[in-house]
Amino acid sequence: MYKVAIIGASGYTGGELLRMLLNHPEVEVTDITSRQYDGTPAHKIHPHIRDSGLVFKNKAPDELDADVVFTATPHGASMKIVPKILDTGAKVVDLSGDYRYRDTAVYEKWYGMEHTDKENKGAFGLPELYRDEIKKADLVANPGCFPTGAILSSYPLVKNDFVDRIIIDSKTGVSGAGVNPSSTTHYPNIADNVNPYKISSHRHMSEIQQELHGFDDVKVSFTPHLVPVIRGIQTTSHSFLIKDITVDELRQAYEKEYKGEYFIKLMDEGEIPHLSSVRGSNFVHIGGFEIDETGRAVMLSAIDNLVKGASGQAIQNMNILLGIDETAGLTHFGLHP
Amino acid sequence: MYKVAIIGASGYTGGELLRMLLNHPEVEVTDITSRQYDGTPAHKIHPHIRDSGLVFKNKAPDELDADVVFTATPHGASMKIVPKILDTGAKVVDLSGDYRYRDTAVYEKWYGMEHTDKENKGAFGLPELYRDEIKKADLVANPGCFPTGAILSSYPLVKNDFVDRIIIDSKTGVSGAGVNPSSTTHYPNIADNVNPYKISSHRHMSEIQQELHGFDDVKVSFTPHLVPVIRGIQTTSHSFLIKDITVDELRQAYEKEYKGEYFIKLMDEGEIPHLSSVRGSNFVHIGGFEIDETGRAVMLSAIDNLVKGASGQAIQNMNILLGIDETAGLTHFGLHP
Amino acid sequence: MYKVAIIGASGYTGGELLRMLLNHPEVEVTDITSRQYDGTPAHKIHPHIRDSGLVFKNKAPDELDADVVFTATPHGASMKIVPKILDTGAKVVDLSGDYRYRDTAVYEKWYGMEHTDKENKGAFGLPELYRDEIKKADLVANPGCFPTGAILSSYPLVKNDFVDRIIIDSKTGVSGAGVNPSSTTHYPNIADNVNPYKISSHRHMSEIQQELHGFDDVKVSFTPHLVPVIRGIQTTSHSFLIKDITVDELRQAYEKEYKGEYFIKLMDEGEIPHLSSVRGSNFVHIGGFEIDETGRAVMLSAIDNLVKGASGQAIQNMNILLGIDETAGLTHFGLHP
Amino acid sequence: MYKVAIIGASGYTGGELLRMLLNHPEVEVTDITSRQYDGTPAHKIHPHIRDSGLVFKNKAPDELDADVVFTATPHGASMKIVPKILDTGAKVVDLSGDYRYRDTAVYEKWYGMEHTDKENKGAFGLPELYRDEIKKADLVANPGCFPTGAILSSYPLVKNDFVDRIIIDSKTGVSGAGVNPSSTTHYPNIADNVNPYKISSHRHMSEIQQELHGFDDVKVSFTPHLVPVIRGIQTTSHSFLIKDITVDELRQAYEKEYKGEYFIKLMDEGEIPHLSSVRGSNFVHIGGFEIDETGRAVMLSAIDNLVKGASGQAIQNMNILLGIDETAGLTHFGLHP
Repeated sequence: MYKVAIIGASGYTGGELLRMLLNHPEVEVTDITSRQYDGTPAHKIHPHIRDSGLVFKNKAPDELDADVVFTATPHGASMKIVPKILDTGAKVVDLSGDYRYRDTAVYEKWYGMEHTDKENKGAFGLPELYRDEIKKADLVANPGCFPTGAILSSYPLVKNDFVDRIIIDSKTGVSGAGVNPSSTTHYPNIADNVNPYKISSHRHMSEIQQELHGFDDVKVSFTPHLVPVIRGIQTTSHSFLIKDITVDELRQAYEKEYKGEYFIKLMDEGEIPHLSSVRGSNFVHIGGFEIDETGRAVMLSAIDNLVKGASGQAIQNMNILLGIDETAGLTHFGLHP
Repeated sequence: MYKVAIIGASGYTGGELLRMLLNHPEVEVTDITSRQYDGTPAHKIHPHIRDSGLVFKNKAPDELDADVVFTATPHGASMKIVPKILDTGAKVVDLSGDYRYRDTAVYEKWYGMEHTDKENKGAFGLPELYRDEIKKADLVANPGCFPTGAILSSYPLVKNDFVDRIIIDSKTGVSGAGVNPSSTTHYPNIADNVNPYKISSHRHMSEIQQELHGFDDVKVSFTPHLVPVIRGIQTTSHSFLIKDITVDELRQAYEKEYKGEYFIKLMDEGEIPHLSSVRGSNFVHIGGFEIDETGRAVMLSAIDNLVKGASGQAIQNMNILLGIDETAGLTHFGLHP
Repeated sequence: MYKVAIIGASGYTGGELLRMLLNHPEVEVTDITSRQYDGTPAHKIHPHIRDSGLVFKNKAPDELDADVVFTATPHGASMKIVPKILDTGAKVVDLSGDYRYRDTAVYEKWYGMEHTDKENKGAFGLPELYRDEIKKADLVANPGCFPTGAILSSYPLVKNDFVDRIIIDSKTGVSGAGVNPSSTTHYPNIADNVNPYKISSHRHMSEIQQELHGFDDVKVSFTPHLVPVIRGIQTTSHSFLIKDITVDELRQAYEKEYKGEYFIKLMDEGEIPHLSSVRGSNFVHIGGFEIDETGRAVMLSAIDNLVKGASGQAIQNMNILLGIDETAGLTHFGLHP
Repeated sequence: MYKVAIIGASGYTGGELLRMLLNHPEVEVTDITSRQYDGTPAHKIHPHIRDSGLVFKNKAPDELDADVVFTATPHGASMKIVPKILDTGAKVVDLSGDYRYRDTAVYEKWYGMEHTDKENKGAFGLPELYRDEIKKADLVANPGCFPTGAILSSYPLVKNDFVDRIIIDSKTGVSGAGVNPSSTTHYPNIADNVNPYKISSHRHMSEIQQELHGFDDVKVSFTPHLVPVIRGIQTTSHSFLIKDITVDELRQAYEKEYKGEYFIKLMDEGEIPHLSSVRGSNFVHIGGFEIDETGRAVMLSAIDNLVKGASGQAIQNMNILLGIDETAGLTHFGLHP
């Protein structure tokens, strides 16, 4: 059994890592750390994780007994911790934004802080696009939740030079805001409501752009909305065709790109990707494949923001780093209904 | 007191008309009709409307005792009934799609049926744009729910030639699907989900286009999503500027257009239109007023689909037809939280 | 026009008072106070209340220009403020628990603090039971939200000596927890969940007992549950008959007790009180009227916790204090769906 | 690998059986039957189950190739099918009510139909109470969803003669109503609402009584409520102590009864069983352990109605029938948040 540890394990991504890792056939969780909850049993914070025997400890990054360490720490914190872990010889999957940018200047612009670890470079942890880089890496930068759904549903459009402009209109569940309550997550403000936010300036826009607009300078825009959903990101992309393609050619581009990808499911004609179909699972459902009379292509995707958008993808990356079956511990289906 | 009647009063729009008309200072409801519920007291179908004394009757359109008749009937049915009501001398506010199109050929294309009453023309019942036409009319075509939110939040953009392309991405509550249960409205399919539908071909697209793209042939696209909300339509419009304007100029165009409009509220900087702010009310909240680095303007609106998107706007039109205060019976605020 | 002021107007009950008072035909709101939001326009905190011209002020209780003052202040705070307001000659409707108890020792036990104003006694503000006392009062203690639904649906049972034990099992919407976010009100903890709390020791139990168990020492128990609902309290009471009565006699006791009460609606046979039927309104729907094979009577009620359970009832009490129509400003129906 | 088949596999319990069986280490699904969907691939009905290769077939009960057959058929249908399956030598787990009653007269009273298979007797499939009977059985009657949560949380109370009366007040998610839409499951009727139903006469009351009131004739009452939740049943039991016990003795009775039970988790003091903690899992969380001043004991439980309340428990029973590890395929944790 490989040994894994989680730094900052008291949040939702920590809980999700535990939920899946405790049933993973080839790893055992050796350490879960938390400064705030030092000494607290896991189930007091994650009430669904019973009888794991795990207790939060306030351990230093270099005191962990692990082959792979997940850093479920906020941006800014990860870049202080990750170098120390790498020094111990452990590999790292970082769930923050700190190592996602090829150009740290972009990071510094959008995250508003100096990047203090320009030495270590993370592989961008989207296995469907970067599997080979991840295999060779010691550090994987797990992508953001919005970018995962947006990039996977748009990548074939730009790779094939079909479009010159993409509008990403995303609707996210509230668990994306994390475990700490705020006015934004107050039930009466969310239920029966739709809350657009950072409508022209969400920092995930830069991460999506990094992956998509290298290709012939496609213009990429992004607007997120908070919807009364616990888990899941539904992404609708509206893009403008610059090639005269048919709906069949559109679909074929996706089939070709994602052939053999276990976690990507392309919807049949008439099927819509639903959040419930992927709830709790690592699958990505991609559909849409329509072109309207104004030459707009409409693509849709659904992911669980805490799984393929965070902890599940992190485990997928861990599996690749460990050289084991990429789907190990991740084969469960979504929880529909 | 003026007399009003409702044909097809057993659905949600019928219930909403009753809720507001029974507290209206200048009208009394004389008749509510329903074939299915002939003889049934109102509160058996609309459990919130107690002690109104009203009973559904299966009356013919020309048997009603009314100054104004609301036809809350499905498209196709209205065009058979409306001419008969107009013959009695009553005025009509029709809530179906039948009289919304200047060109009945567009109707016939999108609604898939022959239009059998090409003689009577309805004023398009968006008072903020067509108040003068409505005043003179005998028949008002109450706009669709999606078009109301979409047109009002985009009209100044096209009137001022700011843009050449608009993507309308709308999120609607489930009451828009009506009172009859279906797989689409089954609680386990809606809750914790986001369901895009008719993503490139919803018939309301044609109604929005009619109002917006006369101006220099602006290309208008539309995609609706069903969200786990009972009431409300949140609309995000993404449009591409063809003039070099500032955010202030953008806002000023809206302030100028909607100056003095009682039901339209423009959000301050930093405020977001929320469905809860307009829930149950006839107000429209419009916000956004942002331009991103790709030259995309983002506008937002929130309405209650059953009120400003249907029954409230119908009463507003009735008030204009009767020559009374346009806001009578409609001054209540939204139900936040 | 009578003048009214609201102390502590920034919470949900303050927002609801404004929502209804601004459309009230016989009063005007002169002052809204808040220490925290001194100088802030009302709509920044209550986004549905636009263009009221009202601004929060940090005014002292004796600086208000009002015939009636609502104290929407926490328990403990009200008893410090109320005596000062009464000294100005204004009447007071207090929404806290401070003046609800005939015996301040009970208050001190359940609220865990000394009662510092034993001189002023409030009329218990449940007009359907205490209308005459309220008429003569200068100070009305507006009842708690749970007690309002529980007492009204159980009172005829105890008044007629039908039962010797009542279990009140209540399900409440989250707005009852107030406007301040906490782990308890965090969307992911509430949605798709049912959270029982203080299952044998909620302080509202003592308020219900005060009103119900004087009668032959009926034993009253109470357990509240938080459900994924914004507004509303659904109460199910299970009680054990000590008289051999029929379902008809059970119903007749309620019909007799509540004859002529505008805000109380008794459901027909087969009808269930629904939260949506009273949402946003001051009505109480009472139903159930069943007796099972073990001799248990089941009664049900539905109220809006912020209206009949707080601000609506407070306005009803204000109307009585002012000697105007008890229903003024409160005739709107519930928002169904 | 053992072979299993599902009759009536197109409903929610069928989908849940598939979700868990397809990841079960020791069985393979050979047949899924449906008359309505003959020839349809599984994912068209269960959109989360992709690439299973399974197709619904309209097969007769005696044509199945299986060691164990699940009959996910309505009551009335099961008793016609089960004898034919047993004749083939396969064992059966029946999810209907048909074989749950020791006395078929009780069945006939509550289900309103003649029982046509009085020959075959099912073991009552609550392994925590009847493991030995199940081991020896060919036919297991999987318990109802409400009874599972109610019986497990109340059984130690009656076994130890602590109480003489139990009120079971249950709150259920909407998936319990099945996959077919109706007015009851229409989103606008469920969301933001609490709907009590069959408040004194739900047929599950008789199943709970069968298991609980043999002991000294304890009186058992039951009232269910539909709440805006997809999955889960939260049960609150209020019961009246006839022994003078402490809270510690109350807890110890549960600890003793459920010692070593993998799927039953007793909450620590101060912990509340939450639906989210068991969502999608086969665990039962039991808490409460309080006694109020009127001598009422309050117990709480949370289950997933589709898992421990249906398909998960059915698989647990299958594991026992097959003589394999009782927890196989069922070790995944709940989906919190």
